Amino acid sequence: MSFERANIRKMQGYTPGEQIDSANIIKLNTNENPYPPSPEVASALLSIDLDLLRRYPQPMADKFRAAAANLHKVLPENIIATNGSDELLRLAITTFVEAGETIAVTQPTYSLYPVLADIQDCKLTQIPLHANWDMPADFAEQLENSAAKMLLLVNPQAPTGKLISTSYIAQLASNFSGLILLDEAYVDFVDPDLEYNSVSLIENCENVLILRTLSKGYSLAGLRFGYGIGATSLINPMMFKTRDSYNTDHISQQLASAALSSTEYSKDIWQRVRSQRNIMRKSLNELGFVTPPTQTNFLLCQVPDSLGAENLYQLLKQRNILVRHFDQDRLRNKLRITIGKESENVALITAIKEIVAATG
Amino acid sequence: MSFERANIRKMQGYTPGEQIDSANIIKLNTNENPYPPSPEVASALLSIDLDLLRRYPQPMADKFRAAAANLHKVLPENIIATNGSDELLRLAITTFVEAGETIAVTQPTYSLYPVLADIQDCKLTQIPLHANWDMPADFAEQLENSAAKMLLLVNPQAPTGKLISTSYIAQLASNFSGLILLDEAYVDFVDPDLEYNSVSLIENCENVLILRTLSKGYSLAGLRFGYGIGATSLINPMMFKTRDSYNTDHISQQLASAALSSTEYSKDIWQRVRSQRNIMRKSLNELGFVTPPTQTNFLLCQVPDSLGAENLYQLLKQRNILVRHFDQDRLRNKLRITIGKESENVALITAIKEIVAATG
Repeated sequence: MSFERANIRKMQGYTPGEQIDSANIIKLNTNENPYPPSPEVASALLSIDLDLLRRYPQPMADKFRAAAANLHKVLPENIIATNGSDELLRLAITTFVEAGETIAVTQPTYSLYPVLADIQDCKLTQIPLHANWDMPADFAEQLENSAAKMLLLVNPQAPTGKLISTSYIAQLASNFSGLILLDEAYVDFVDPDLEYNSVSLIENCENVLILRTLSKGYSLAGLRFGYGIGATSLINPMMFKTRDSYNTDHISQQLASAALSSTEYSKDIWQRVRSQRNIMRKSLNELGFVTPPTQTNFLLCQVPDSLGAENLYQLLKQRNILVRHFDQDRLRNKLRITIGKESENVALITAIKEIVAATG
Repeated sequence: MSFERANIRKMQGYTPGEQIDSANIIKLNTNENPYPPSPEVASALLSIDLDLLRRYPQPMADKFRAAAANLHKVLPENIIATNGSDELLRLAITTFVEAGETIAVTQPTYSLYPVLADIQDCKLTQIPLHANWDMPADFAEQLENSAAKMLLLVNPQAPTGKLISTSYIAQLASNFSGLILLDEAYVDFVDPDLEYNSVSLIENCENVLILRTLSKGYSLAGLRFGYGIGATSLINPMMFKTRDSYNTDHISQQLASAALSSTEYSKDIWQRVRSQRNIMRKSLNELGFVTPPTQTNFLLCQVPDSLGAENLYQLLKQRNILVRHFDQDRLRNKLRITIGKESENVALITAIKEIVAATG
């Protein structure tokens, strides 16, 4: 017997990266931050008043909203806190896109998006990126032709690591009749010299909803805390209608607020990741792995045919090193490798060198 | 400009009970537990390894599922952990009920249900309870005639406090072609002499999904942790398809697992609540408030017309005592009062006596 809705019955669920519970694993497969949460977060955890847990949490996470508004120089009303950025993606779709309407994405993109479209019974239009991962010249035209109600756009992009400029996004938004969800999961790792800041877009582009997460930049994937930044016409329906009434818990609200206040620590670990990614990229290119520049905490590298991407993934796994291989068009000959701690990165490069030598 | 879907645009969001942030308030309006979380939960909080937060949490909350399976003598596969029971309600609806299909509820019932039906663009059939809050004799017939895909049934019921027997539910389920979501948010406060246990229903009734929460019985409303118990044909689609990939966080998984293991402490606080509710009920009846027996941690009492329910709600609020008044049919002349600590309950009864004397 099956009670599932027809579209749920025929769909496939999302496959997250492997989460192996072992201290011996070098885990470079799910873009987690290699450094621990900040001292401010540690202090917030120690300050939790257990007795407060018997009461419902602050329903709208006001303390966190104030902290995020302060950080981004917007009003608290422009912020919605969510149970991971996963919740924001789902809320945006269920609030703004009818079943049968179209969601547009780039190809390749974050592999969760097609699953979310399936759950809401939406059509999916995939617009291929240029061979060098740039947006194609006619992207805006293809987008408008797709009649999409929403564009899900990761920036810096996943899994390619490329950054799209704010001026491009502003132009795209002003010509698009639908809504752009700008998924900035990896934005904290963008080189500060590029002065990338999309938040000012929300003033003039009422159709841009920015997604942020504390999972990557703030080393809090285990906490499940994300947020949205946008015009109140986008925030309010999710905040006051479609969100679960108490969608974030008391403890995570305190820790997330503390995380946003840990400015110095955060800047330091982001810089370390950037520094390590330069070293990693150079090493991989020297080994013949074509590895374009990235503004995220991962690299997408093309594995030499003599080795094979899936083969290398398996050989690394045998050595307790996990990286990510996607069995999909344009990605089959590549691996996505998270930037780890220096020792982890050195271990990876050493392992690849040994494998190359043994294969040679 | 509004991007909202048509059904979202026209709907009203849920109004939770007031959450006033003040130590001076006696808060008997949202059915929170008056006692703190268990010593086992306190110990779990102190044992949290902050560094683990940088990694994604265990995606399916396996440790918690094992604890819940052990408690209920079912398999872990029969359990799904959720971000509060709110998430389970939403997941069940979005997984099993198409837009345009009907959801049935009793009238009165939990005031969130009509909002959830609106979000999924479902029709709502409200089947009135008997005048004494019993299920009407022709309930099964009305349910089948409604062609409902799902029945949302609170047991013990909210806001009436009445308990429906498992034999009645088994009979209902066997005659119903849809799915019964049995919301047992308040089940921990049922008198153990009644030997109520619905979990065995899931063996033979593949259309019964039981909802549990740690918010009430385990004093963890601030943690947001609930779970579902049901046949794998109901659990699997939510677990592997429609759930957000990491729907519960690392800290709450640890604390929730600890809560379920705190058997002695939990039994003790549930007994205290039952004992206090007997005293409260007697006091209210003596004051002329018609207060039927209840199997929950709240009372639904009819306020004498000379006083008026909304008037009394306001007068109590002026004295920093919050109770719940619902401005809806059959409830307008009643108040729902949470069982608090002895001192809080005494303060409430004293305040009502003073108000009655001043009104008299």
